[in-house]
Formats: sequence, C-alpha cells, structure tokens
Amino acid sequence: MENLGCMNPKDVRSLIRKNQLVRPTAGIAQGYTQANLAILPKELAYDFLLFSQRNPKPCPILDVTEVGSPEPKLTAPGADLRYDVPKYRVYKKGQLYEEVFDLENYWNKNLVAFLLGCSFTFETPMIRNGIPVRHIEENCNVPMYITNIECNPAGVFAGPVVVSMRPIPAELVVRAVQVTSRFPAVHGAPIHIGSPERIGIKDITKPDFGDAVTINQGEVPVFWACGVTPQAVAMRVKPDLMITHAPGYMFICDTRDEDLSVF
Amino acid sequence: MENLGCMNPKDVRSLIRKNQLVRPTAGIAQGYTQANLAILPKELAYDFLLFSQRNPKPCPILDVTEVGSPEPKLTAPGADLRYDVPKYRVYKKGQLYEEVFDLENYWNKNLVAFLLGCSFTFETPMIRNGIPVRHIEENCNVPMYITNIECNPAGVFAGPVVVSMRPIPAELVVRAVQVTSRFPAVHGAPIHIGSPERIGIKDITKPDFGDAVTINQGEVPVFWACGVTPQAVAMRVKPDLMITHAPGYMFICDTRDEDLSVF
Repeated sequence: MENLGCMNPKDVRSLIRKNQLVRPTAGIAQGYTQANLAILPKELAYDFLLFSQRNPKPCPILDVTEVGSPEPKLTAPGADLRYDVPKYRVYKKGQLYEEVFDLENYWNKNLVAFLLGCSFTFETPMIRNGIPVRHIEENCNVPMYITNIECNPAGVFAGPVVVSMRPIPAELVVRAVQVTSRFPAVHGAPIHIGSPERIGIKDITKPDFGDAVTINQGEVPVFWACGVTPQAVAMRVKPDLMITHAPGYMFICDTRDEDLSVF
Repeated sequence: MENLGCMNPKDVRSLIRKNQLVRPTAGIAQGYTQANLAILPKELAYDFLLFSQRNPKPCPILDVTEVGSPEPKLTAPGADLRYDVPKYRVYKKGQLYEEVFDLENYWNKNLVAFLLGCSFTFETPMIRNGIPVRHIEENCNVPMYITNIECNPAGVFAGPVVVSMRPIPAELVVRAVQVTSRFPAVHGAPIHIGSPERIGIKDITKPDFGDAVTINQGEVPVFWACGVTPQAVAMRVKPDLMITHAPGYMFICDTRDEDLSVF
C-alpha cells in the first residue's frame, strides 16, 4: 500500500468505502482536514445548528448535508457519509448500541449529517512552529476535561464546554495563541491559559475523556474548546438515534487545513 | 442631547425605543457592533441558518432569537428587537409594504430574528490604520454590486454573492487585507482585488445598490462579501412576511467591535 500520509482524500475514502482501511485516521492524507461526524434526526437539526452557531469555538461546523442526503457537498463533493468513515458508533436514546463499518442498516431519509472541525487542523501548524504537542509525542489521545463554563443553550441543547489540554513551554505560549488564532473555524485560540481550577478542573491528572499526558517543569497547561462538546451535549438529549464516528476514526475532507486559516 | 458617538448601547437603545432617535446609526455608540436585522417566519429559519452557515463571508450571523422571542440574548441581553431599531421595513411576499418605527403590529410568536454583522465593524480599524474609506469621505452609502459568484445554496435559498467595494491606494491593499482578515465574523478578508469584470461587474460606476464613489488614479477596487446578500436571497423566496431594518438604521449591540476580531 502506498504511503497513507501522502495519499489524497479521494483515494483514502475509496479504500475506506471498501472497508480496506479500518484504522484511526491520524497521519493519513496529511494537510487535509479531518472532521468529526454527528448524524441526528431532522427534528433536532435546527436546534443543533443553532447551538453550534451560538458556540462556534467548541462547535465549528464545516458542513451540513441536506435532509436525507449523505453527501457533504461543500467539503467533499461525491463522498458518501454512509460508507466513507472507517468506523461509526450508533447511539440509541443516548446509549452506545453498536459499532459498525457502514450505515447500510441505519441511514434513512430523515437524517442530517454534520461535519465538525477538529483540532488536528491546528496541531500540524503548531508542530511546524516548534510547539510540542504532547499527546502526539506520547502517542495517546488528547486529554479532555468538562469545565464549569456553560455553553450558550439553544432549544433542547445545553451543557458545559469540554476543553482539550496541551502543556506548552512557557516561552512558547504566545506563539501557540498566535498559531491557533489563525484557525477560528476549528476551535481557534485557546479559551484558557494556566490554572485549571479557574475553569472548574479539579485534577489535571484525571481527564474526563482521553488520556492524561506529562506536564513538564516550566510548562503551562493551555486549554482549547473541544469538538467533544457538541456530541456530549447532543447525547444528553437522548435522541432516538444518533450516529457519530468512532473516536479517532474521522472523516477526511477534500478541504485543506490551510483553507480553514483566516490568514 | 449628549454626544451620541460616546453613548453606550443601552442608553442609545433606550432613546430609540422611545422613538427619540429616528436617524441612521452611523457614528453612534462608537466601538460597538452595529448589526443588520432580518426577521423571518420560523418555517424558513432552518434554511436561512443553514444558508448562512454555508456562506459565512456574506452572511455573518451574530445572533438568532428563540422562536417568538424578540430578545437577542447573546449580543444585547434585555434588548427588544420589536422596538430597539430606529426604523424597520416590512416586506410582504418580497414587496416593500411599509416602513415602521416599531413592530407592535407585526411581531408574532412564529417569527425568528437574525442579527448579521456588517462592515462598519472593520471600517473603523481601516481608518485607524490610515486606509481611506471613500464612501465615508464622500458621505454616501457604500457601492454594492451583484457578482457572478453563486452562494452555496441551502434549502429554498440560493442566489449570487453581493459585494461592497472600497477603492484602496495600491500601496495599502496588503494592509487592508490584513486589517479586515482580523474580523472573519463580519465579512473578513476581501473576496476579490482588482478587475471588476472577473467577478461579473460590467460597470463599476453603476452599483446595483448604494452610491457610486470616486476611484482615484493609483487606487485599486477591493471587494468584500456584503451583508445585503442574505436579505437579497431571502427576498427572492417571497416570504409572506419578512422584516428588516431600514438601510442605515441598524441595531446597536452590546458587543464591542474588537470582541469580533480573532486577534
């Protein structure tokens, strides 16, 4: 198999569609945007879209399909969200029901698919700027925490902001703010720098999601709004059916990471 | 009356609510965000929100009220969009029906109000950066043009992007791009620099909306996506009822212009 990192998104999705690439997508089709997937019944679509509009930092929407259509026309025309994600999670009434490799048995004309940006997009520029990304160095998932910051509610959706944390050497914190500010469409600048207690995190060594990472002497914990927020909030409503990507098994768009920078 | 430029938004809105300030809002409550208003029946709200999400440059949504509520909770908590805009335009089936000073006779439980950003927000920083804003110098409305660039359609909404044009001295074009890029939430960077024909504008001296302005020797026409786009597109659908602000009579938010910059 050719080098996955250098493949273009269409070829990668074609392998995924044939179930020939069932693995986490980190490092695949580098330079192209990977997105979180949330599929909801159309009855919830307006509230979910409004919630995202009111909370753009945790909920950066990249694409919304027409009701009943699995094609993300803006970010990957011709793709099919029923097949082009390596692994899905199906939730019924807020409970994980099963993991599947396509949505053959679940897709219906009443569903709307949302693609949401993820911080992968700004981690590559961080690394290129010499800013360490600890969970990549330690080959684990980014640590995520539920904060005491409430999202702006919308319709049936409400809940706290979830943040991801990256420990940054003190002398690079300003640069980290600058680099990520370039990408407001995928979480953008941090929402908090330093003391975790200030945003309601009691124990930084015990993330609510993902894995704990090492914080070295001289490093400052820096917190970004996290794309887990909208999924966590939607789950609280216990929709009859909700489908997401399996964690780490993302949808790969035709959009380049740099297309999402404002400068 | 005290200096309107230095007044805070709450005091200005209080005068407006009493119909004691029926005039265009340019220059009032300087440093605070002025917004375009579009009120639509809830049946059109999802498509309009989706259209805006798919076309963020011409349609920068700042706030959306709950169905039936006239309060813009994010941008001006406590304000009332039935009274706090100096002059409104009421459209029935896409035709201007009348201008009114409050919505006493029109507001109903089925309406949703959208506040959309406008380029006033980035014109102040332009001036502070020594970039001339010709329509302010010439005390007229900004020239606006219908382009050959199609918006991404959504549901019932589709149509061309409308742009505003500012002639910029060639040596300041880069700076103009930088300054406006800071404000992706209010149209952001230009979408075109130079030759008007390239985006379907046949005669730069004949704008489709607003007033023609002088383009001096050595100046380049620079085009930004314009907030008239969503109103023009919504009008094409000929909704039974649609209400907007009267041109120039904007809603003044509590949000500061600088709150909308990404850095």
